[in-house]
Amino acid sequence: MSDKVVDAPFTLAIDGMGGDNAPEVVVRGIAIAAERHPAAKFLLFGDEAALAPLLKRHARAAAACTVRHSPAVIGNDMKPTAALRVRGASMRMAIDAVASGEASGVVSAGNTGALLALSKIVIKTLPGIDRPAMAAIGPSARGDVVMLDLGANVVCDTRNLVEFAVMGDVFARTVLGLTAPTIGLLNVGTEETKGDEQLRQAADMLRESHIGPQFHGFVEGNDIAAGTTDVIVTDGFTGNVALKTGEGALRLVGQLLRQVFSSSLSAKLGYLLARSGLERLREWLDPRRYNGAVMVGLNGVVVKSHGGTDAEGFAHAVDVAMDMVVHRFNDRIREGLSRIDAQRRPTLTEKMA
Amino acid sequence: MSDKVVDAPFTLAIDGMGGDNAPEVVVRGIAIAAERHPAAKFLLFGDEAALAPLLKRHARAAAACTVRHSPAVIGNDMKPTAALRVRGASMRMAIDAVASGEASGVVSAGNTGALLALSKIVIKTLPGIDRPAMAAIGPSARGDVVMLDLGANVVCDTRNLVEFAVMGDVFARTVLGLTAPTIGLLNVGTEETKGDEQLRQAADMLRESHIGPQFHGFVEGNDIAAGTTDVIVTDGFTGNVALKTGEGALRLVGQLLRQVFSSSLSAKLGYLLARSGLERLREWLDPRRYNGAVMVGLNGVVVKSHGGTDAEGFAHAVDVAMDMVVHRFNDRIREGLSRIDAQRRPTLTEKMA
Repeated sequence: MSDKVVDAPFTLAIDGMGGDNAPEVVVRGIAIAAERHPAAKFLLFGDEAALAPLLKRHARAAAACTVRHSPAVIGNDMKPTAALRVRGASMRMAIDAVASGEASGVVSAGNTGALLALSKIVIKTLPGIDRPAMAAIGPSARGDVVMLDLGANVVCDTRNLVEFAVMGDVFARTVLGLTAPTIGLLNVGTEETKGDEQLRQAADMLRESHIGPQFHGFVEGNDIAAGTTDVIVTDGFTGNVALKTGEGALRLVGQLLRQVFSSSLSAKLGYLLARSGLERLREWLDPRRYNGAVMVGLNGVVVKSHGGTDAEGFAHAVDVAMDMVVHRFNDRIREGLSRIDAQRRPTLTEKMA
Repeated sequence: MSDKVVDAPFTLAIDGMGGDNAPEVVVRGIAIAAERHPAAKFLLFGDEAALAPLLKRHARAAAACTVRHSPAVIGNDMKPTAALRVRGASMRMAIDAVASGEASGVVSAGNTGALLALSKIVIKTLPGIDRPAMAAIGPSARGDVVMLDLGANVVCDTRNLVEFAVMGDVFARTVLGLTAPTIGLLNVGTEETKGDEQLRQAADMLRESHIGPQFHGFVEGNDIAAGTTDVIVTDGFTGNVALKTGEGALRLVGQLLRQVFSSSLSAKLGYLLARSGLERLREWLDPRRYNGAVMVGLNGVVVKSHGGTDAEGFAHAVDVAMDMVVHRFNDRIREGLSRIDAQRRPTLTEKMA
């Protein structure tokens, strides 16, 4: 599996039925993405009868797509164990296409737990990876920040955290184009004595590893938006809560600002005068611009779009998948992991001697 | 200890030397608080030589304060175990004053870990409380929200989470004046199957308890700012990260808005026109308005001010301590806990039968 040859490196499998507004948002998203990636081809899995009229309206999407009929859909509330048993689901068939080498990656806006469970079983994890993680990009005062795990693993051990750091490093190089991204381990304080034993051990291992020079040490919640490091590593529980807390805070300010600017005639005029800057700010913080969480550590590219996103957001998730494929993301993770293992073994032996 | 009689219920002990800008900010903070609480008296612990000139300049503070000389200070970087051994520290002497009944509560802007460790040992926890927690108030779209634990306990078990919920309920009644605050347990999803075993057990226990009708179930990170519930319960690691992540996101937007409004003459004029609303928003989100984390579950009122706060922020932390004292916060927590215990035992017996 790890040495499989991908027949069409620029082909992505798309779950046409996943997400709150599927399949319409998916087809419109492909139309936008196809414009930006003229060489890309898409295998679109879904209900042919529902997809046909949409593709008629979106010639650009139709030209880039091959439709594969899938009779079933995995619902948003379905448990992963139940999802595994659904035959002919659009999500399952799209993942199968990556496992068979027909596509280099898959994008779905469907059930997150099902996508992760199916991907782990069908596409499998990379050699040496214990558990895949969900990674995504967010805004900070010093540019974009990569954070992982965002919820794939509610409980993590030391080794998981170290693997997340290696994968986060490769992610930041691949998607943000950085040459030596700095890496922080999320904790309740920056002193070396903070946190539990597992966090302190992970910090020790990272200091000794090939990414040691990039390891900044512990960071705190406020360091995410401050952009203290390019990569933030944490367990899936904390990462999920932090991501949603930050999004919630930004949404609250957005709501309050809208109230302020519509509260009086004078405030409305004020908005018009400051509009260009405020619009730039809104666009920069736009959650659609950060749509597309990557399931890193799998033997293929798997990107999860937010279920409630619009066409622009779905197209962004496709962009992320293309970036991963074009930059051979998984090959580079494999290299990083082999270096961690090569360095780690003598250290353990020394400790046992 | 639990039945001690407090000699002067409106006397607070103040650590005069704790915090980045002590003792000046502390004395100025007392001056502001004394104006708002004319009946309050303060025992101010610190270096007499440093405090005297400050009190000369602030007559209002001088009138409300009795200075007690303390020869030592607990530094910000000192470990709790080391802090326990410092004789004559301002923080230690202030805590001793609560234990002896001379004061009803203590306010410190000093070392958080030391304040918690000293309080646990000197003031002791309430009967039935396993571990005290740090609670504070933050802004949400639907009014103020209470969150705990914010970092006192990096690792928590089921019983701790249930105790935090009981204490959070009393906190919201006392400080926010709510009659039946709603309570949410922070998780990575709202479905009952989400999270680890411990979280699901805590949810079961809360549903069966006397606060069951107020228990909303699991909430997610975005529910904090949305104000889905009045109280958010979580372990100290997650709570600390979530608090700082939210603060960081708000700070980022604040910085960006300042940039937008100074980017052009037109934007500057726009700010002036929308100013009254923007100023109200800034004041509402002002971190100083939320300063003062309460160490709940102790046999006395202990309030931690942010170390870097200014006089207005310190005065707010004093306000919080006064609220707790006036509303007999600890008596009400004791009542809540006795009800949890009374209800819980038959349930456990039933399960064993």
